[in-house]
Amino acid sequence: MDRSSLPSHHGVEQPVPEDRDYPNETLRLLIERASCRNFADREIPDETLQLILEAGTHAATGGNLQPYSVILIRDPAARRRLAELSQQAFVGQAPVSLLFCIDWHRLGRWAELEVAPFTAADSFQHFWISFQDTVICAQNICTAADALGLGSVYIGTVLCFFHELREMFALPPRVQPVVLLCLGYPQARPAPRRKLGVESVVHRERYQDPADAELLRAFDEKYPDRRVEITLERLGAIRDVCLAVHGEAFAERCIRTIQTNGCIRAAQHYFGLHYRADVMPEGNEALVAQTEEFGFGWFRKFEPPCPPKDRDPGA
Amino acid sequence: MDRSSLPSHHGVEQPVPEDRDYPNETLRLLIERASCRNFADREIPDETLQLILEAGTHAATGGNLQPYSVILIRDPAARRRLAELSQQAFVGQAPVSLLFCIDWHRLGRWAELEVAPFTAADSFQHFWISFQDTVICAQNICTAADALGLGSVYIGTVLCFFHELREMFALPPRVQPVVLLCLGYPQARPAPRRKLGVESVVHRERYQDPADAELLRAFDEKYPDRRVEITLERLGAIRDVCLAVHGEAFAERCIRTIQTNGCIRAAQHYFGLHYRADVMPEGNEALVAQTEEFGFGWFRKFEPPCPPKDRDPGA
Repeated sequence: MDRSSLPSHHGVEQPVPEDRDYPNETLRLLIERASCRNFADREIPDETLQLILEAGTHAATGGNLQPYSVILIRDPAARRRLAELSQQAFVGQAPVSLLFCIDWHRLGRWAELEVAPFTAADSFQHFWISFQDTVICAQNICTAADALGLGSVYIGTVLCFFHELREMFALPPRVQPVVLLCLGYPQARPAPRRKLGVESVVHRERYQDPADAELLRAFDEKYPDRRVEITLERLGAIRDVCLAVHGEAFAERCIRTIQTNGCIRAAQHYFGLHYRADVMPEGNEALVAQTEEFGFGWFRKFEPPCPPKDRDPGA
Repeated sequence: MDRSSLPSHHGVEQPVPEDRDYPNETLRLLIERASCRNFADREIPDETLQLILEAGTHAATGGNLQPYSVILIRDPAARRRLAELSQQAFVGQAPVSLLFCIDWHRLGRWAELEVAPFTAADSFQHFWISFQDTVICAQNICTAADALGLGSVYIGTVLCFFHELREMFALPPRVQPVVLLCLGYPQARPAPRRKLGVESVVHRERYQDPADAELLRAFDEKYPDRRVEITLERLGAIRDVCLAVHGEAFAERCIRTIQTNGCIRAAQHYFGLHYRADVMPEGNEALVAQTEEFGFGWFRKFEPPCPPKDRDPGA
């Protein structure tokens, strides 16, 4: 899997009017939020961290089950290793990283100790909700951090190095990393990025497909200067990607379009060079199989009866 | 799929000290947050809704792609239908519901119009991040709603009636509902539920497995009075569930434990009666297959080259 094709940010700054009025500070925080990738060399006090984490444990969770765990990482060697794995130097600079994991191990142990039946780690439905629960917890922690003057950035590529994370943090079976969040005091307040607005993302009563021109205008406003210069290398790379995924005729059409436009436009850069369309769907089966290897039966038929799982199926 | 086994709340109230000091209002909101299931008969003003939705569109999103859409539902007939489908009357009382969907259709159309290669709807990696993006957007909207005096509740069971939602809201291929959020003014401020605290959920540097007694104590504190009375019907139901998933010996051990304890304890109630261990993993393959039916190749091997997808593969 080509991780170098997965950096974590994009887009141009969005000017926020200095004098915009918000009904309260929470709304200002949420609407002016931006990811922080420049952390000051300053520790996060324990009381601050405790409060932030508490905001996470009080988040909404399906059936009040809390099927998640958070690994709190401050150890410098571990942070350096995370920076290597994610290929992002700022990950090592953040004084704290939090690894959010779906955790059915804790609830499985509880069921075992209480002599209750337990199959949640084998249920797509439970997977679907526990994934949400884990992210809801993460996002409340992210907002709490913002509210206390910290900056944060999500690292979504943990899926690509799950084996390493499992080793580093001694994750037991039935624990699956979802996302990493780096926290620290920002060196400077990061500027918000341009986004598709409510008029593009929200559909009233029914899904509304905009006309082609309207759709293009919305993306052009989001990426006003995302026109990448043509080089032979880029042209060759995009051609290869198109050829691999959509065949010869499409590849020719794409290259002709680039030449007519005189530049590589945002969508072509995104899916032809950055999140390469030939690389991103690679290894789907391996990623699905990996979840099985780590104790989950989310994506396969459940075959009862089976004995309750041992506390450590690896033993 | 037995939806009646999937209600959406649990747990006892958590007393919050009236005089607890928070460093700011955002922290208070996050730590004292509770789901609202009693909505007043009062509309949400358009300006309020607009601001809340804006908080969603400014949320963090992998690569700034925003691969999600939100269906804003105010129509009374649609709300009544959602209440029926989710088997929750309060869903119909909430003046607004928001359906959060992973949306690769909009980006796919953009790529098509710009003549860019596009395979994101067939990538497990893109699935993993877009699921997160969708929930992060939802949770920011949830926090914004709280900050403006609204109450909200997530309905996680949309997975069980995706076909109906697709029909109701005219969802195109490559759009997948993730979760429904009901919004409205609360009749009374909901009380927070007891939760596992930071000491149970957060692990410092490595996953820390607590001793059995410690684990049980943490759950006992969370569910202090979750002991369900024994009835013949309940005993029979739990026995059947245990028998189906773990076999005869386990079923006998479970029933003996219940009789010795003189009650059905929380874990047994959760996984034996409520989120029934025999029902929850049912239909895993159907749910995985359903994602294919709706235009995604997340969980299968990608087989290029293939022509770029039509705007409407169903046509």
